Amino acid sequence: MIVRDKPNAFKLLFILRGSVVTLIFGQIAFFTLLGTAVAAAQYYYPVIFPTFTLSPLALLGVALSLFLGFRNNASYERWWEARKQWGQLVIDARSLSRQVTSYVDESAKGGAELQQRMIYLTIAFSHALRHQLRQSDPWSDIEKYLNPEDIAALRKSQNLPDALLRLMGKKLGTCRHKNLLSDFLIQSIDDNITSMATVQAGCERIQSTPLPFAYMLLVQRTAYLYCLILPFGIVGSMGLITPLFCAIIAYTFFGLDALSEELEEPFGLSANDLPLSAISRGIEINLLEILGVIELPAAIQPVKNRLI
Amino acid sequence: MIVRDKPNAFKLLFILRGSVVTLIFGQIAFFTLLGTAVAAAQYYYPVIFPTFTLSPLALLGVALSLFLGFRNNASYERWWEARKQWGQLVIDARSLSRQVTSYVDESAKGGAELQQRMIYLTIAFSHALRHQLRQSDPWSDIEKYLNPEDIAALRKSQNLPDALLRLMGKKLGTCRHKNLLSDFLIQSIDDNITSMATVQAGCERIQSTPLPFAYMLLVQRTAYLYCLILPFGIVGSMGLITPLFCAIIAYTFFGLDALSEELEEPFGLSANDLPLSAISRGIEINLLEILGVIELPAAIQPVKNRLI
Amino acid sequence: MIVRDKPNAFKLLFILRGSVVTLIFGQIAFFTLLGTAVAAAQYYYPVIFPTFTLSPLALLGVALSLFLGFRNNASYERWWEARKQWGQLVIDARSLSRQVTSYVDESAKGGAELQQRMIYLTIAFSHALRHQLRQSDPWSDIEKYLNPEDIAALRKSQNLPDALLRLMGKKLGTCRHKNLLSDFLIQSIDDNITSMATVQAGCERIQSTPLPFAYMLLVQRTAYLYCLILPFGIVGSMGLITPLFCAIIAYTFFGLDALSEELEEPFGLSANDLPLSAISRGIEINLLEILGVIELPAAIQPVKNRLI
Amino acid sequence: MIVRDKPNAFKLLFILRGSVVTLIFGQIAFFTLLGTAVAAAQYYYPVIFPTFTLSPLALLGVALSLFLGFRNNASYERWWEARKQWGQLVIDARSLSRQVTSYVDESAKGGAELQQRMIYLTIAFSHALRHQLRQSDPWSDIEKYLNPEDIAALRKSQNLPDALLRLMGKKLGTCRHKNLLSDFLIQSIDDNITSMATVQAGCERIQSTPLPFAYMLLVQRTAYLYCLILPFGIVGSMGLITPLFCAIIAYTFFGLDALSEELEEPFGLSANDLPLSAISRGIEINLLEILGVIELPAAIQPVKNRLI
Amino acid sequence: MIVRDKPNAFKLLFILRGSVVTLIFGQIAFFTLLGTAVAAAQYYYPVIFPTFTLSPLALLGVALSLFLGFRNNASYERWWEARKQWGQLVIDARSLSRQVTSYVDESAKGGAELQQRMIYLTIAFSHALRHQLRQSDPWSDIEKYLNPEDIAALRKSQNLPDALLRLMGKKLGTCRHKNLLSDFLIQSIDDNITSMATVQAGCERIQSTPLPFAYMLLVQRTAYLYCLILPFGIVGSMGLITPLFCAIIAYTFFGLDALSEELEEPFGLSANDLPLSAISRGIEINLLEILGVIELPAAIQPVKNRLI
Repeated sequence: MIVRDKPNAFKLLFILRGSVVTLIFGQIAFFTLLGTAVAAAQYYYPVIFPTFTLSPLALLGVALSLFLGFRNNASYERWWEARKQWGQLVIDARSLSRQVTSYVDESAKGGAELQQRMIYLTIAFSHALRHQLRQSDPWSDIEKYLNPEDIAALRKSQNLPDALLRLMGKKLGTCRHKNLLSDFLIQSIDDNITSMATVQAGCERIQSTPLPFAYMLLVQRTAYLYCLILPFGIVGSMGLITPLFCAIIAYTFFGLDALSEELEEPFGLSANDLPLSAISRGIEINLLEILGVIELPAAIQPVKNRLI
Repeated sequence: MIVRDKPNAFKLLFILRGSVVTLIFGQIAFFTLLGTAVAAAQYYYPVIFPTFTLSPLALLGVALSLFLGFRNNASYERWWEARKQWGQLVIDARSLSRQVTSYVDESAKGGAELQQRMIYLTIAFSHALRHQLRQSDPWSDIEKYLNPEDIAALRKSQNLPDALLRLMGKKLGTCRHKNLLSDFLIQSIDDNITSMATVQAGCERIQSTPLPFAYMLLVQRTAYLYCLILPFGIVGSMGLITPLFCAIIAYTFFGLDALSEELEEPFGLSANDLPLSAISRGIEINLLEILGVIELPAAIQPVKNRLI
Repeated sequence: MIVRDKPNAFKLLFILRGSVVTLIFGQIAFFTLLGTAVAAAQYYYPVIFPTFTLSPLALLGVALSLFLGFRNNASYERWWEARKQWGQLVIDARSLSRQVTSYVDESAKGGAELQQRMIYLTIAFSHALRHQLRQSDPWSDIEKYLNPEDIAALRKSQNLPDALLRLMGKKLGTCRHKNLLSDFLIQSIDDNITSMATVQAGCERIQSTPLPFAYMLLVQRTAYLYCLILPFGIVGSMGLITPLFCAIIAYTFFGLDALSEELEEPFGLSANDLPLSAISRGIEINLLEILGVIELPAAIQPVKNRLI
Repeated sequence: MIVRDKPNAFKLLFILRGSVVTLIFGQIAFFTLLGTAVAAAQYYYPVIFPTFTLSPLALLGVALSLFLGFRNNASYERWWEARKQWGQLVIDARSLSRQVTSYVDESAKGGAELQQRMIYLTIAFSHALRHQLRQSDPWSDIEKYLNPEDIAALRKSQNLPDALLRLMGKKLGTCRHKNLLSDFLIQSIDDNITSMATVQAGCERIQSTPLPFAYMLLVQRTAYLYCLILPFGIVGSMGLITPLFCAIIAYTFFGLDALSEELEEPFGLSANDLPLSAISRGIEINLLEILGVIELPAAIQPVKNRLI
Repeated sequence: MIVRDKPNAFKLLFILRGSVVTLIFGQIAFFTLLGTAVAAAQYYYPVIFPTFTLSPLALLGVALSLFLGFRNNASYERWWEARKQWGQLVIDARSLSRQVTSYVDESAKGGAELQQRMIYLTIAFSHALRHQLRQSDPWSDIEKYLNPEDIAALRKSQNLPDALLRLMGKKLGTCRHKNLLSDFLIQSIDDNITSMATVQAGCERIQSTPLPFAYMLLVQRTAYLYCLILPFGIVGSMGLITPLFCAIIAYTFFGLDALSEELEEPFGLSANDLPLSAISRGIEINLLEILGVIELPAAIQPVKNRLI
């Protein structure tokens, strides 16, 4: 995620970081060259060169903006829903920790250990979910929060975050059989675990179900066809500034397309993706503070305006 | 569902799998021929051939894009809601299994059997729901998870997934009368069953209630009329490239229309439909792992970029 | 609701059932005649006949499509919300029945009678709600599911479905005072009753609150003005095919308008309204099967592609 | 709210009640006069009079329809959300009454009095909320449903509906200390009270937070500028029918604007506002019937097609 | 937030407070000057000056309005969601206070103190959340509502509002161990605390996650390019009124852009931001009244039509 103050109008035109220009440089260059070629051809061979009025392009433009607009909305909604899922995780982690520290009797046998255990597992869950979504290795982040005897079993699991939630459930079940916890408290905590499972499944849904492939084909094919036809339609009225206009139009259409594609998969590491590392570190700091830990890890800061 | 990396710009123009081009080949061909005929007629008999300016078409184009845009949004929302329903099923299956394995005392008489029974029935439900939605035969997938004495009764039921949920309820009721389960636990598990019933009824709703038929008529009639009029409107300015433009316009409008139609019924087996087999197999693997089963079935993999 | 397979392209243009063409035949005919008159006048008196370019119409067209698009979206959302309400009723009816048959002890005194009573009242509710929304007489459908002593009181009620829900509540209350049901079960069942009350009030809201009347005026007045001006704007460029184009434009605008009007009140009996009879019969069959009834009523089938 | 059958096409053009024409008569008249002046000036001094083509207006028209469309959607959503809040109040009132009459033992000491008290306070709440939102005096409607000793305290309260809900809570608390009600029942009823508090706060939110003022400025300024420029842009092609067209365009843009403004504040007494009096009277009738009252107040009927 | 009656049409054009004109004065001035320069150049050197028809601009205009419309919708939704979060806080604060005063026995030892403590902490939370979101110092507002012994610990916390909620939980936990509160009551109150935590995390989400930076770049770059090209496109047909039209178009596009930017961060102190001070003061007054305090603080009034 890009975090920066608004630049002034002049700087704004030349910012590259966080911009999608770098991703679509090829398209812009290609269509600028095409525009140049068409303008040159029309300049030297005006009689035999095929041109036409712009109106048919407007018909195609309506369809193209329909496609781009739809895809952009759908991608942004995926991105924002993903952010909401992680916002829900923050709520669940805080609520579970508050309930555990408020209602479990620290002085009872096993009370303090239960508090620490549940909060540690919650921290581990938030890191494990991030690594699952980014397909990276979670163990350096979570090992310190796990009991050694659990690690072996967890390493075998096909779905680590889900296994961590089940471990929390098991712990609760054990305490229940020992009458350490009342049913009322178990139900409240279990609701939070279910809510974390909902967050996980929601993120998995977004990750495993891209927008239907056919939309991408429809949008991109129409955009390419549109930009291929464009110079022939405008060269008659714009003459030698045709290449400039081709570049601008290619920038707007392919720019929105590239941004939609980035937002469609919001869990990655590209410039406009969600700062999952910062959020899960934030949960870690928050929960360790609740446990009374003094030396807290540092919050993740943006590097060159970018938060990961 | 099509699962593939983004192809490069050149390949992109020629991909057929997952594209809707194959579905609308007839329309594209027809309107290309029409465009050719019109262009030829105008070339040979320019004086007597009726042409007109493009502006009236723009009026019709606004209405057409309104219809197409609406229908596409509504269809996509149906598709995404269906995906959310199945995502909810994943959550319910995991939560029910976690609760059963955490809070039911395995050492109590009937405890282990109750755990297995509830989890098996949940697996059976997810397969049965898929087969109900795809109108295929469920028995090979679910028989191994059912008690022989239940199968006969289930075969008579008019709504198999619902009967499986009632079987789960009955089992819970029996345990309650035996005081094997506390009311607290029954309520939690019953909430999950109700949630699975909600998923089922939501999927049935989407399946049994298509978009109002009149929308389809309105969209298709307007699209046909538009494309029939189109060549007469553009032949004056585009001359011999009229057929090319007719083909492109027909591709965009009928392409979006065909895609909307595929997404409107998201449970089928066409290229852009939901991968229900993969999701229900995923639930099966997940739940068997929770039960401690070692030899898990294999996850379903995409075949030629397509996941069913 | 119209239920039919997709017709081929040729048939599609001539389908009347489920189409809105029959509703707007008057408007299409009128504007075709107007177009003919204008075209004839311009043909015979080209000099003195007032015509103008099409551009001003485009300005008005933008406003008109804004109005039509908004009204269509709002109407469709009402229709789909209504369908969701009835989908929720299916869920509530099934869940209540499952809970009653699972957790009420059939062998206890009054247990079997309680099960049947609650399920019968649920069936009666779904029929009564349909008849309330369609303002038809419910008694032939529900009498067989009611105790004779209740019928007299119910006939006096100003709101039959609500009175049925209260009857269910009363029955639960009586059982509670007799300790036949635990508070846990009463709460679960009462939640279902509240959810059915929510469905009823949601349907009443949709029925009693049409879209603001001023929208209808704004849409229709603009559409009429637009179509009245249209022939004068296109006759200059289209000449004798003006009437054809007038007919097509009138079809698209008044067609969408008529469809919006049908969907706005989704509980009626017109072609695109919701199949409430089929849904409530479905609930009846489902619940009787749960009670173990062998001879079930037949599901309602579409008649001439139409399900009511 | 306007309640009437659809008028025929001819009448439709001349209906004033419920139309926004009366609100924007000034604007329509002004721009018609402006159009007349411009047309006359161009007729008599065609050479020196400044005119231009229509295309620049189209650019502005896109922005204007963007603003109008957005504002209309936002206002309609406020109106519909307000209606849903009152629909929720109907549900809460009915559910609370059903629970109180079902589960409170009438034969116990204070039971019948508790039932009547809770239902009376619910009726008083619905009237008080309406009067709060319309800033009118509530006492004539609610006095008969209150205990004389409470009235003095309530008159001092700064927020009457909220004070009524607290009174309900207090009553429940008293009964609880006397063990007249079980915790289960208190929880159910308290959930209904919380839901009524949610309705109230939702209505207060809509009332106290108008759409950002800057939207109104942006929409209105652009609409005025557009209509001021309009006649100069169309007089070249439309000549003497310019005033007619100016009137039509002003009607569509200012009409939508005026309607949006009415719907934005849905609790008032203008023609398209919500019929709060009818809804709260409906709650009153419904709840008195539940209490067994025979002589019910009459439902509020539309006067000249208008329901308040 | 701007609170004022609707001005008349003439005044409307010259209002500055709450308008975004002041924010975009630079852009309007620049593009007016550019328009003047272009018009002058074309007036004196009509032959060599490059102009072109307007149609290519229309293509770009479609893309620009797509971007502006999307960004405006997304920003408004953030603003309105933020308002809903604070509306939810009003509900939670009232409900918690009602429950505490209704169900906690004042006459029991510690009962009255518990009531006051919970309500004071709720007031402190609402002030602390506002100060967190506006990054201002909370202590003058909240110190009077805190126990001296808690202040030191709270001052060390990295997240004050969250620490206040945990303090409420701790207090409940203590009372539970003393059997002052039943589990039923604790659960109800804890639900309210969780809901307040949800409000806080929702506000943090909106504040910490701006719209993707690339949207801002895309919108602004396209708007600048559009306005730079504009005078060359319209000077041919509009001549010397080109600067006026440039100013109007710059006003509409940059105006909407500036408003979107204000609404995107709804918690600040700019003219169209949310009146958090007024809302949290409202909660304070409401809750003190519930506690029976006579001398209530004054509600915050708009200053020069502006409520903060």
